[in-house]
Amino acid sequence: MPSRPALLYAQSGGMTAVINASAAGVLHAARENDLRVLAAMNGVLGLLEEELRDVSRVSQRNIELLRQTPGGAFGSSRFPLGTPASRPAHYRRLLDVMAAHEVRWLLHNGGGGSAGTSLHIANAAREAGYPLSVIHIPKTVDNDMTLTDFSPGFGSAAKFTAVSVREAAQDLAAMARTSTKVFVMEVMGRHSGWIAASAALAQSASCPAPQIILFPEIKFARTRFLKQVEAIVQRDGYCVVVVAEGALPYADSRNMETAGEHARDLWRVRAGHAAPEVAALIKEALDLPCHFSISDYLQRSARHLASAVDVEAAWRVGIEAVAMALRGENRVMAALKRQKTTRQKQNLWRVEPVTLARVAGREKGLPKSFIRRDGFGVSAAGLGYLQALIAGEDYPEFSAGLPLHAPTLGRSIPKLLPAYDCSSQDD
Amino acid sequence: MPSRPALLYAQSGGMTAVINASAAGVLHAARENDLRVLAAMNGVLGLLEEELRDVSRVSQRNIELLRQTPGGAFGSSRFPLGTPASRPAHYRRLLDVMAAHEVRWLLHNGGGGSAGTSLHIANAAREAGYPLSVIHIPKTVDNDMTLTDFSPGFGSAAKFTAVSVREAAQDLAAMARTSTKVFVMEVMGRHSGWIAASAALAQSASCPAPQIILFPEIKFARTRFLKQVEAIVQRDGYCVVVVAEGALPYADSRNMETAGEHARDLWRVRAGHAAPEVAALIKEALDLPCHFSISDYLQRSARHLASAVDVEAAWRVGIEAVAMALRGENRVMAALKRQKTTRQKQNLWRVEPVTLARVAGREKGLPKSFIRRDGFGVSAAGLGYLQALIAGEDYPEFSAGLPLHAPTLGRSIPKLLPAYDCSSQDD
Repeated sequence: MPSRPALLYAQSGGMTAVINASAAGVLHAARENDLRVLAAMNGVLGLLEEELRDVSRVSQRNIELLRQTPGGAFGSSRFPLGTPASRPAHYRRLLDVMAAHEVRWLLHNGGGGSAGTSLHIANAAREAGYPLSVIHIPKTVDNDMTLTDFSPGFGSAAKFTAVSVREAAQDLAAMARTSTKVFVMEVMGRHSGWIAASAALAQSASCPAPQIILFPEIKFARTRFLKQVEAIVQRDGYCVVVVAEGALPYADSRNMETAGEHARDLWRVRAGHAAPEVAALIKEALDLPCHFSISDYLQRSARHLASAVDVEAAWRVGIEAVAMALRGENRVMAALKRQKTTRQKQNLWRVEPVTLARVAGREKGLPKSFIRRDGFGVSAAGLGYLQALIAGEDYPEFSAGLPLHAPTLGRSIPKLLPAYDCSSQDD
Repeated sequence: MPSRPALLYAQSGGMTAVINASAAGVLHAARENDLRVLAAMNGVLGLLEEELRDVSRVSQRNIELLRQTPGGAFGSSRFPLGTPASRPAHYRRLLDVMAAHEVRWLLHNGGGGSAGTSLHIANAAREAGYPLSVIHIPKTVDNDMTLTDFSPGFGSAAKFTAVSVREAAQDLAAMARTSTKVFVMEVMGRHSGWIAASAALAQSASCPAPQIILFPEIKFARTRFLKQVEAIVQRDGYCVVVVAEGALPYADSRNMETAGEHARDLWRVRAGHAAPEVAALIKEALDLPCHFSISDYLQRSARHLASAVDVEAAWRVGIEAVAMALRGENRVMAALKRQKTTRQKQNLWRVEPVTLARVAGREKGLPKSFIRRDGFGVSAAGLGYLQALIAGEDYPEFSAGLPLHAPTLGRSIPKLLPAYDCSSQDD
């Protein structure tokens, strides 16, 4: 039987290269404070199913390995939990499970949608008079969470994107004289161009790429785009195009209109339609040889190329979330606030609590002021914001040529309650 | 006017993450021997056009930067030079340009096809009585060159592939309970499964991925494949499929047959059809949520994740090619020969000359013995061969979060001959 109040940690939503660094920060701070710590398997689903692990005694070594492991060590969840009003049984069950295991602090690690879940759980607890402190820990490669300077996970996706563009541009530049002249790279971002924008960091005096970025925020204009590609190939000899997955609405695409329903269906298998479409447009209209890549999960799991700023931020929001919990904060997110040092030379981030109600369900889009006037690039203001987030390297330990990852952590906790049917409709 | 005999270096074919490490090795060894060194811009095309740079005085610092720069610093070429018999004018021109600049040694850095060009040039020189020593320096991500233990470039593409699979598998494992269950990763390899095979290195006691590899060498059997995916998702909760771009002949694809000619054309924009096709098959037949990636140029330009063994091998074939040239070798390739140390614990590679005629135009396929009996994985023999090639990391220097690359090297050399029309037909 549980002997003392527990802190419960859960992961949610799409994974990042550094969400486990937040988990490691939580475990580290909990150790320092000699807390009992549980992890829910697969986020709120593990709470409903009472699938919990005791991670109080994870070794320092395994916390180090966890910090350098991509993906989510405890499993994520995209389970549609609903609201306390629409699914009261789910929320009663969550509270029952927490009560059975004497959970007093819930640290929920997720994006803007999951922040809504955090708030719903806090509301349900308050309604039921259950003493619970809920702290949300931000994460998302999409960088669309409000009231935090950035979302841990984004810095590393941004670094992967910028480095990959700079490297691929060297390849393309060498091939362009007699072979491939255009390289199209598709990155994540259905509604916002944050990751696409980060590609612009690759540019330097000796690297004109990426010469074109296609944002979901800018309406795709085919003719203008093709003219631009043609002019750039004329000028630079080659052109790198970075396209956010949501930058080309199907309705704007002649190819998609004529490709037939079956082909459209094939392309609608999640992401992965934007780059081939752009490459096909260029090939058809300009007859230029194209290559394209779709990084998909690679861009959000490339822990080997994580940004040191991002890893440190992820680790520290984990640490500070524990501190907030212990000092009695509730219904807050551990947010990052950027500060310039006195000499304005270095960026530093403080971690501060912000009210969860101001975060939940809201989205921070890429500011229009970050997009260059012509719509194909990033402004100086945007570059200034983004640059700081990819600074520094934080290489994982390798063995036999491959990165070392954490093993399964902690031990499974015996269930104290009867089973629960997660698909159950409410009474 | 040239004052002393020169060594000429040229790059050819598809780029790799480490071909510039070979270039750096050549420049380093040439400096040590106080040689006059020229680089042809865009391979043989630069020779035809007399576009040459004097790179004798490249600084040690820039040689270091060159060693860590992906792509081809002097530009590559896929120019169809033809043979001395079919295009005698081209070969006369090559010899004229070399004579004008007193080139005595030609170091040609390329794959199996380019080795044929090296041999043709050596033959043309011998025929014309022009004193020329031709040394071929191997490179290719495809690893299909004969008589060398591996081709520099392949080790790094293999490492990128294995690391990416291991990282993405962590992400997928976390998502699988409530979201994506299959991740399909397309890698290069139209005719051979060398890169696809390297993905198998990601497997460990705690990482079952990649559970399925699709090789061009194995006829794709849709039903058997789908059954395998279903069984693996049942067993492991998720499945990573690595597919070589040439593993799915169009004729075997029901989707491609019904997708209509236009869609087929779209997908034939070079690589990039295999992963979406596999994902679509899985989605259609098994209704499992899929994600897919296409790494394309990223896998061959990811110098940030280069294999230390591969970088060192690339550097050393460059160094040794200069040594071979200086000791009067001709019509040879600087090949890698693997040796076990006495205790069999460490792999070492010697660089040895092998007769170019035995290399040119030949291909080394993935041995059948390297493919697992069921056709979906790699045998122990294959893993043993591959493991050695991804060992060690060789991180480039970073600045402001991005890898530093070499600037334009050397100085352009004034042309001594009249212009030449490369498109000219022979007399």
